[in-house]
Amino acid sequence: MDRIDGRQWNEMRPVKITPGVLTFAEGSALIEVGRTRVLCAVSVEDRVPPFLRDSKRGWVTAEYSMLPRSTPVRTPRESTRGQVGGRTQEIQRLIGRSLRVVTDMKLLGERTFTVDCDVLQADGGTRTASITGAYVALYQAIDRLMRGGALKGMPLQTPVAATSVGMVAGEAMMDLCYEEDSRADLDFNVVMTGKGEFVELQGTAERNPFNRQTAMDLMDLAEAGIRQLQEAQQAAIASLALPE
Amino acid sequence: MDRIDGRQWNEMRPVKITPGVLTFAEGSALIEVGRTRVLCAVSVEDRVPPFLRDSKRGWVTAEYSMLPRSTPVRTPRESTRGQVGGRTQEIQRLIGRSLRVVTDMKLLGERTFTVDCDVLQADGGTRTASITGAYVALYQAIDRLMRGGALKGMPLQTPVAATSVGMVAGEAMMDLCYEEDSRADLDFNVVMTGKGEFVELQGTAERNPFNRQTAMDLMDLAEAGIRQLQEAQQAAIASLALPE
Amino acid sequence: MDRIDGRQWNEMRPVKITPGVLTFAEGSALIEVGRTRVLCAVSVEDRVPPFLRDSKRGWVTAEYSMLPRSTPVRTPRESTRGQVGGRTQEIQRLIGRSLRVVTDMKLLGERTFTVDCDVLQADGGTRTASITGAYVALYQAIDRLMRGGALKGMPLQTPVAATSVGMVAGEAMMDLCYEEDSRADLDFNVVMTGKGEFVELQGTAERNPFNRQTAMDLMDLAEAGIRQLQEAQQAAIASLALPE
Amino acid sequence: MDRIDGRQWNEMRPVKITPGVLTFAEGSALIEVGRTRVLCAVSVEDRVPPFLRDSKRGWVTAEYSMLPRSTPVRTPRESTRGQVGGRTQEIQRLIGRSLRVVTDMKLLGERTFTVDCDVLQADGGTRTASITGAYVALYQAIDRLMRGGALKGMPLQTPVAATSVGMVAGEAMMDLCYEEDSRADLDFNVVMTGKGEFVELQGTAERNPFNRQTAMDLMDLAEAGIRQLQEAQQAAIASLALPE
Amino acid sequence: MDRIDGRQWNEMRPVKITPGVLTFAEGSALIEVGRTRVLCAVSVEDRVPPFLRDSKRGWVTAEYSMLPRSTPVRTPRESTRGQVGGRTQEIQRLIGRSLRVVTDMKLLGERTFTVDCDVLQADGGTRTASITGAYVALYQAIDRLMRGGALKGMPLQTPVAATSVGMVAGEAMMDLCYEEDSRADLDFNVVMTGKGEFVELQGTAERNPFNRQTAMDLMDLAEAGIRQLQEAQQAAIASLALPE
Amino acid sequence: MDRIDGRQWNEMRPVKITPGVLTFAEGSALIEVGRTRVLCAVSVEDRVPPFLRDSKRGWVTAEYSMLPRSTPVRTPRESTRGQVGGRTQEIQRLIGRSLRVVTDMKLLGERTFTVDCDVLQADGGTRTASITGAYVALYQAIDRLMRGGALKGMPLQTPVAATSVGMVAGEAMMDLCYEEDSRADLDFNVVMTGKGEFVELQGTAERNPFNRQTAMDLMDLAEAGIRQLQEAQQAAIASLALPE
Repeated sequence: MDRIDGRQWNEMRPVKITPGVLTFAEGSALIEVGRTRVLCAVSVEDRVPPFLRDSKRGWVTAEYSMLPRSTPVRTPRESTRGQVGGRTQEIQRLIGRSLRVVTDMKLLGERTFTVDCDVLQADGGTRTASITGAYVALYQAIDRLMRGGALKGMPLQTPVAATSVGMVAGEAMMDLCYEEDSRADLDFNVVMTGKGEFVELQGTAERNPFNRQTAMDLMDLAEAGIRQLQEAQQAAIASLALPE
Repeated sequence: MDRIDGRQWNEMRPVKITPGVLTFAEGSALIEVGRTRVLCAVSVEDRVPPFLRDSKRGWVTAEYSMLPRSTPVRTPRESTRGQVGGRTQEIQRLIGRSLRVVTDMKLLGERTFTVDCDVLQADGGTRTASITGAYVALYQAIDRLMRGGALKGMPLQTPVAATSVGMVAGEAMMDLCYEEDSRADLDFNVVMTGKGEFVELQGTAERNPFNRQTAMDLMDLAEAGIRQLQEAQQAAIASLALPE
Repeated sequence: MDRIDGRQWNEMRPVKITPGVLTFAEGSALIEVGRTRVLCAVSVEDRVPPFLRDSKRGWVTAEYSMLPRSTPVRTPRESTRGQVGGRTQEIQRLIGRSLRVVTDMKLLGERTFTVDCDVLQADGGTRTASITGAYVALYQAIDRLMRGGALKGMPLQTPVAATSVGMVAGEAMMDLCYEEDSRADLDFNVVMTGKGEFVELQGTAERNPFNRQTAMDLMDLAEAGIRQLQEAQQAAIASLALPE
Repeated sequence: MDRIDGRQWNEMRPVKITPGVLTFAEGSALIEVGRTRVLCAVSVEDRVPPFLRDSKRGWVTAEYSMLPRSTPVRTPRESTRGQVGGRTQEIQRLIGRSLRVVTDMKLLGERTFTVDCDVLQADGGTRTASITGAYVALYQAIDRLMRGGALKGMPLQTPVAATSVGMVAGEAMMDLCYEEDSRADLDFNVVMTGKGEFVELQGTAERNPFNRQTAMDLMDLAEAGIRQLQEAQQAAIASLALPE
Repeated sequence: MDRIDGRQWNEMRPVKITPGVLTFAEGSALIEVGRTRVLCAVSVEDRVPPFLRDSKRGWVTAEYSMLPRSTPVRTPRESTRGQVGGRTQEIQRLIGRSLRVVTDMKLLGERTFTVDCDVLQADGGTRTASITGAYVALYQAIDRLMRGGALKGMPLQTPVAATSVGMVAGEAMMDLCYEEDSRADLDFNVVMTGKGEFVELQGTAERNPFNRQTAMDLMDLAEAGIRQLQEAQQAAIASLALPE
Repeated sequence: MDRIDGRQWNEMRPVKITPGVLTFAEGSALIEVGRTRVLCAVSVEDRVPPFLRDSKRGWVTAEYSMLPRSTPVRTPRESTRGQVGGRTQEIQRLIGRSLRVVTDMKLLGERTFTVDCDVLQADGGTRTASITGAYVALYQAIDRLMRGGALKGMPLQTPVAATSVGMVAGEAMMDLCYEEDSRADLDFNVVMTGKGEFVELQGTAERNPFNRQTAMDLMDLAEAGIRQLQEAQQAAIASLALPE
């Protein structure tokens, strides 16, 4: 089956990660995956949530939002509707958890790292692009603290990246764009470390239930895509080390 | 390792499903899984959400809530806080999706089935118990419409049930209670049909990433548990057919 | 005039109070008055509201809510509407006041007792059933503290119970069910102690004003009903003393 | 016992009702009871709430609010807190019910009369002053429609007025001011028609339960006060008939 | 062009300021400008907002609200809508800023002066009438503190007053009433001190852009009006000094 | 006095406007003024607000928001706080008014143009940059409709642009950055058409009142800055006409 944008079934969209795009944020990155664009910004505060006080541990949390005209048809702002929607909360919890699993909280010190992922343009895969970009922004913020001597060791234990794969019209497909995602029978969001281990595995049948072989095939496909994303993360991080 | 309540690693808690516990609701069931108790009530309305109008298709949706003292320590009501929390919304979306995947929307007619899952007591696994109980309540509501001749065919294609398994202190465990869940390294919520296919597979590393073998082992464990839940569902449904 | 459920004009519906139905709550009771069912749960906290700090006095407060399908037609949740309604607040203030009048706040110590009254099924008289059941749940919570030696004396000075009576089609009627309540000309909610004194007297003309004789007759009727409720409370409390 | 403002136990505060104080409102009145001042404004709309559509009946409803500095210490606005409080809702439901009981809804036509009661200064008895003033404002609005030939007959069947009496330090007292109300053992709000019948009778024990004789005595006292309020209403209404 | 109420183009409506109209408020004034009436009340608290703590400076802030039937057609309450609207917030920020510019914060001590401006009747110019009346109410509150010896010097450095002028159908007009304001091409709100200096200058083209000459002409017109308002303020303040 | 970024007192920061930066939006522009960056997106809908139905007129409205880490210190999201703040509402009303004054509503047809101005980075002057960028985005959206033949004539009558000038430490300064704005005695936001006429003139004394000469001087300064902004707008618009 031909894909809407001419890709092969196992081909990712072009990925570009630009670190350090914001002046004020301690860390930042703009990630582009095809037409999807997410601006990730990290803020560091010298305090932790109440449940961690005096624990000598830090915290990493995330917020996610879409600009109203990131989508093909304008979506009303959640601030205007007076409430953060369920989908938004589900996504920001996912981003936060994914980052925390690869971070050693004791090495952060009593600091909170808030990662804001704001979607400038949405063409599918915004939650997985957010995780992938957030890791680079978080790396920049932590790297600054490291260079300033504020941390005892590197809290990031391994990179983390994510992609979305699925079954569309009976065929497995890598990195679904919005149009494909809306027609998918089955959607798999996979979050994986640089060591090839899973952080999160979310398979959701949208129309038909699926069997174990399908699950296995999609995990393989996702793993291949995530390796490419991790290369883009490495390149972005390497560029941070260059003299500006 | 001994479990807190003396169970074997692969043993479910006692399950009891009582259908028809409410007078006014079109369908209802009280499900008890160990100390966890969820009251499921189905309401049928002769209208559908705007996006389905004139589509000759029906809709199944769910709401989930915990009574404030369902928990060991009292939890403030979401009505008092003026907002439905992210966890609640994530769970009610999961319940709704799980029921819809096993239902033929065209056979429902233009009707909305709202399943309210209210947790009377919470000792872990409330979202999976909700799915398991909701299926029985939904069956009762549909069965009534069938007997009244309002439907052309049986919209429920196969049962659906769910359980939560996980890795606690390095060991796989069936049907986590609250205490175990809070100490788990890895939590797998599995929703499965009567045909042994997956509807939803949500593996979440709480502390350490996990590999593919662990994922496979936990899927096996969950499948064994879900078969027991489906027997309890069958027994509950069979009792509905008896003269009252 | 025949009543809808065949009762005499001065006859209460069957009453059943089951104490101790919840595992985690310090006190609990399920009260059934005809088809009306309310689950009452008491939570004890070692702190008081700001206006009582350092007063060596305790506090008793109540929250009330109806499950969405407690009613013949489903009622949307207040959490979804983002606000606790006026009727709900009026009822929870009434329950709290009724319990406080029979409690010696100095003997509670600096503790807050929150009584959650959640209506599982609503067929009229839910606010009065809540008061009647709440007293039993509160008794259980206080009795536990007494046995543990945490209190210097018994703070509950006398039982408190309540019923709703009214004039329907020109005739006085005991313990109105929903159908009768919606057709009543006049509705009297009476809260009374075990000593036969009033705690609250709320007579509301729904259609026609009423004279003093009618008020007197309805007070007599309510008093007779409340005596029966207090017997059911006594039986429930007595069962708490038995070895389980 | 001497009262704080030198009144006799059975003496009302000075009452003044000024009708027609607003230019735009269809009806209005400023009521002063001692230092308590409430501005009542009636708005008439040619439509009714959904549940009355095509019923050929009208509706009367009320809203109540206190200016932030009506009270001795400033009270934050409910608009700022984002929610109308329970006390406010309880009061506006009471005002609305009291006016509806004396109004023939069929003679109103399909119109809604909204009575806004805004407390400019609060020294106790604001809810009962609101009812008493609201009747005069409603009369003016209806009188205008009558003169314009828009109504077939007079919808107001009898006046309605209200006062608050209570037991303070063991003694019955007429028309409690704020200071007395806050020290009362028992508070009785009584709403009565011009024919001496009750519309609402709300006796609330704030500290000690009360017996039937006390209830009877307070009803007598309230009735005497309400007769005086009804004279003030008559005088205000009579002044409307005069050429301006 | 004839004005709707027969005024000359450069004529203000009758202005009346009555200070001290409230019993409980530390300062108060009722200002009437034509049919517009605003009740201003000042509350003094011995604390400041967090950003001023330990600064030895005080704070002046304002809240603004319209009674629902202040307007020709009833406006729903912001408390019912659950949110303070943008126009309201814009106005209360303007009132607060205007008062602060003429006040020496160091001479206030660590106190907050909250000025509530509640519009009883709205016929245009409510924001400017609020500023003009608020100054008198604030003066009374400060004057009381001065007489009680609580302040070291007079914090009010000069009076402040405001009016609204505009271009209607091509002609400059003083002190627009509601009808004129709604037809204006251009609206100028001017806030000015007793020394003839500007505090705020807000020119808003509602239909057509305007040139510099028009801006100059309207500033002249506004200044003439504000001088009259300042005379009314002086008279009101002088009356405060008289024995009551 | 030296300015913080080395500019002359009458020198603007570098301005860059990039049109067409978004794929889905009908019109878009990224405006950069120094470090301030605002993304403007226009959405066109074939319907108008209720008050314009069947008027054959269109509508232009705006929304404004700041990303949480656009600021030197992170600002919580308004969606999380559940309410759109007063400053935000004031700004979006200003942007909408400014665009409407230069647009012929009859030539728009019954369409709504919503301009979303999202601040990616905030270093002062975000409201004036929003207006300047919004005009270019609106031009692109209208230009597309024109080319498609959907409009009878060009609705945009003249460009509109805005800047902020002020008095800092007694000296007039062009185009205040955040640091200067926070220290300003006086802040002037000026919105001007391509014909040199004012659309909005907002002079706000933050500390000291100001006289007419100062007002005149700041108007001159603003006009000079706005001419430069209009050149940047022209260049951006011209680039739209080029083949991509």
